[in-house]
Amino acid sequence: MNYKTIRYVLSWVLKIEAFCMILPLICAIVYKEHNIWIWLFTIAMCFFSGVLLCKKPPQNKTIYAKDGFVAVALSWIVLSIFGAFPLFFTGSVPSFINALFETVSGFTTTGASVIADLDALPKSIIFWRSFTHWIGGMGVLVFLVALLPLTGSGNFFLIKAESPGPAVSKLVPRVKTTAKILYIIYIGLTVLQVILLLCGGMKLFDAITLTFGTAGTGGFGISNAGFSVYSSYCQIVITVFMIIFGIDFSIYHLIIMRKFRTAFKSDEVRTYLGIILASVVIICFNCRHLYTSLFDTVKHSAFQVASIITTTGYTTVDFNLWPELSKSLLVLLMFFGACAGSTGGGIKISRVMIMFKSIIKEVRILAHPKSTLKIKMNGRAVEHETVRAVNVFMMAYILIFAMSMLVISLDNLDFTTNFTAVAATINNVGPGLGAVGPMANFSVYSPLSLFVLICDMLIGRLEIFPLLLLVSPYTWKK
Amino acid sequence: MNYKTIRYVLSWVLKIEAFCMILPLICAIVYKEHNIWIWLFTIAMCFFSGVLLCKKPPQNKTIYAKDGFVAVALSWIVLSIFGAFPLFFTGSVPSFINALFETVSGFTTTGASVIADLDALPKSIIFWRSFTHWIGGMGVLVFLVALLPLTGSGNFFLIKAESPGPAVSKLVPRVKTTAKILYIIYIGLTVLQVILLLCGGMKLFDAITLTFGTAGTGGFGISNAGFSVYSSYCQIVITVFMIIFGIDFSIYHLIIMRKFRTAFKSDEVRTYLGIILASVVIICFNCRHLYTSLFDTVKHSAFQVASIITTTGYTTVDFNLWPELSKSLLVLLMFFGACAGSTGGGIKISRVMIMFKSIIKEVRILAHPKSTLKIKMNGRAVEHETVRAVNVFMMAYILIFAMSMLVISLDNLDFTTNFTAVAATINNVGPGLGAVGPMANFSVYSPLSLFVLICDMLIGRLEIFPLLLLVSPYTWKK
Repeated sequence: MNYKTIRYVLSWVLKIEAFCMILPLICAIVYKEHNIWIWLFTIAMCFFSGVLLCKKPPQNKTIYAKDGFVAVALSWIVLSIFGAFPLFFTGSVPSFINALFETVSGFTTTGASVIADLDALPKSIIFWRSFTHWIGGMGVLVFLVALLPLTGSGNFFLIKAESPGPAVSKLVPRVKTTAKILYIIYIGLTVLQVILLLCGGMKLFDAITLTFGTAGTGGFGISNAGFSVYSSYCQIVITVFMIIFGIDFSIYHLIIMRKFRTAFKSDEVRTYLGIILASVVIICFNCRHLYTSLFDTVKHSAFQVASIITTTGYTTVDFNLWPELSKSLLVLLMFFGACAGSTGGGIKISRVMIMFKSIIKEVRILAHPKSTLKIKMNGRAVEHETVRAVNVFMMAYILIFAMSMLVISLDNLDFTTNFTAVAATINNVGPGLGAVGPMANFSVYSPLSLFVLICDMLIGRLEIFPLLLLVSPYTWKK
Repeated sequence: MNYKTIRYVLSWVLKIEAFCMILPLICAIVYKEHNIWIWLFTIAMCFFSGVLLCKKPPQNKTIYAKDGFVAVALSWIVLSIFGAFPLFFTGSVPSFINALFETVSGFTTTGASVIADLDALPKSIIFWRSFTHWIGGMGVLVFLVALLPLTGSGNFFLIKAESPGPAVSKLVPRVKTTAKILYIIYIGLTVLQVILLLCGGMKLFDAITLTFGTAGTGGFGISNAGFSVYSSYCQIVITVFMIIFGIDFSIYHLIIMRKFRTAFKSDEVRTYLGIILASVVIICFNCRHLYTSLFDTVKHSAFQVASIITTTGYTTVDFNLWPELSKSLLVLLMFFGACAGSTGGGIKISRVMIMFKSIIKEVRILAHPKSTLKIKMNGRAVEHETVRAVNVFMMAYILIFAMSMLVISLDNLDFTTNFTAVAATINNVGPGLGAVGPMANFSVYSPLSLFVLICDMLIGRLEIFPLLLLVSPYTWKK
């Protein structure tokens, strides 16, 4: 284990976090809040902890797979703990475990909240919550890789551990350049959405914070009023951008490189859009009696489907009141999730596709034992290694899901609430059904359950293995 | 496709079913029921359909994997349709889809019922329902293999398709002899349980029918009064035998062969018993306030845990009223299921163990990429083929589960009911929670949902692939 380099990475993570907190500080100054000194104190704490952790860069910056995974897991934990201090110090969330839940929910782009009254919060805190979505969406390690002069395979594993999906597509041979391109696309799309929302007459503060939530597929609300105060135009812009941020970012790189043919051949993106379309049609039909006009029905259905499949978690209506078919479909979409290589959570469309194709392959082999078949995506055979990774991912996913359900059921809430609470956190969605539905929040759970759900959010965002490695005795054995 | 041999197998299945129906006929005669002629008619219909289907045995009795799987799938469908006639003709279940549900639930050893008033049924029908559990428990094809002079690999696949678990253990090199040994153990244990129940003062009819349900891990009730009328002794005997029938039958063969050391080394059985013990302790603690004495608490907990993990589905208490932790634990046990090679359903302990070990292996490989590891069971490496089969099984299982949930949610029952209805049928358990809890029944569902749940029961009993092969276009392509 290359401890020095891990400390080097963590020290940079803290310095970047301190740097990020300057934005909410500015927000606090603009809105003339009393908590300016709290922000200054937290920024200083973050920065000096970072400086103390690693006084000079290690000579050997080479890191391997194991170091990479452990560094990512620790980075996210450190990031969340320091990120929770502003919420705790300002008294916005009086208990530290709740503040940690809220912050982990932010960084992991879950959007599940323990706060009932958003209007009581200072603007700088609202801003920080939404900003954590944006930071967590593309990943702070991806940003680091673009910045730091690390070498070795671990450099790639830092990105692999943080990027969602069964296999990482390097856009260009150099990992560092890949990371830079990803962030440029991310910032570009973010700016575009803010401009489009401002065109719709939205206030700057709302446009920026809601865009952070959309870009990171996070989903924190910013006021008690919710989305009903915004025009249909704004709701539609957000719907479209939720879908955009759920698409594999390498597609945008292909489009920029004018490789349109390859971009449009992506099986995953086509399936993703197909599932969205089919789900909207089904929900429109199922909920047609609830809304007065066809426009409203389509608008709400599309918004909700886009919000849930991309695991954003914004809500324009209380879908807890929808018919059971629509609710079950939404729960199913929570699991599907968005495309690999996007900012979305869930199992990911490509994994679901590989699962489907494995089954078809098995049936074909049983029918014709002598046939040799390969699972294909985008016209190319999927590597055996990737299929294996999907299988093990699913096994671990199911077992962690079951264990989490069991522990949180100690709180004696009903089955639907517990099931969807775990589903909404492990898939980084946000709202569930029942007592954790869109109009409720997660403060119904005990500290123990919140701790389990915090783990689930991190497990979901980092796709299981970095955290398993962190707690496994094999990692720490010489 | 060897159509002739498939017809030959089906014809024998029908003849055996006709033969089996003689027992309820005798029961009808003993209890002087008015439906004797209905039994005679159904028996004749079964027998002559069998005779007509295949007038002379085919010369080429060789069958291959594909034929084996298709033959098994068709056999179970034919078996269920003809088995439903008595229920339908006697008017016990007025709708044919409901009668089919009840019969499939019987043969697949599920024990989910659509009948509210059991005391209104003729004794011969009660007997037949329980008897279908016994027939389906060990499997009618296993019986056929013991009987018929089939050759080729398909002979083995007939057993493979019908025996639960990731890999079939042939007790002896000859498949035919294996089948015979399995039935001898099955009959022996059944007779033993009947005798022990009679010793406890139970009536012969009750002792036989309840034993059928225990042996097949089925779970149909036989009266409205339920288990409260029986002594604690009888309840304990049933608890013990449920656990016994959930153990891999090859263990009993080893014990008969005096290979005690190998028998007690089985990782699966030890894990199975460990899970039962742990679950009983947890539920006792969680439900301690519900019962007056420790004896009652342990008795009810042990009965319910044994009943659910072996997927029998008998109930002495309404566990729908238990605290959420106990309920969630029972739902988890529904999925775990019993041992491979037993009469129980569910995912099977050995598959769950292989899942666990795959994850540990993955973490170890990530931590030490150069290490070469194998997944081991009973001290021996598990074949790659078996691990792959477990993976594909789980993928198909999850997807079928999700699709079923979606379709039955059309009936607009709540999430808990729908989730546990699918869980209880695909795992061949019987009762679920909510509107399909232990004191309720499945008649709340529409015919479409019942059809989906019928498919789930067959899919669960035959472990997915025979039915997928039956409906796959690849099977029927030349």
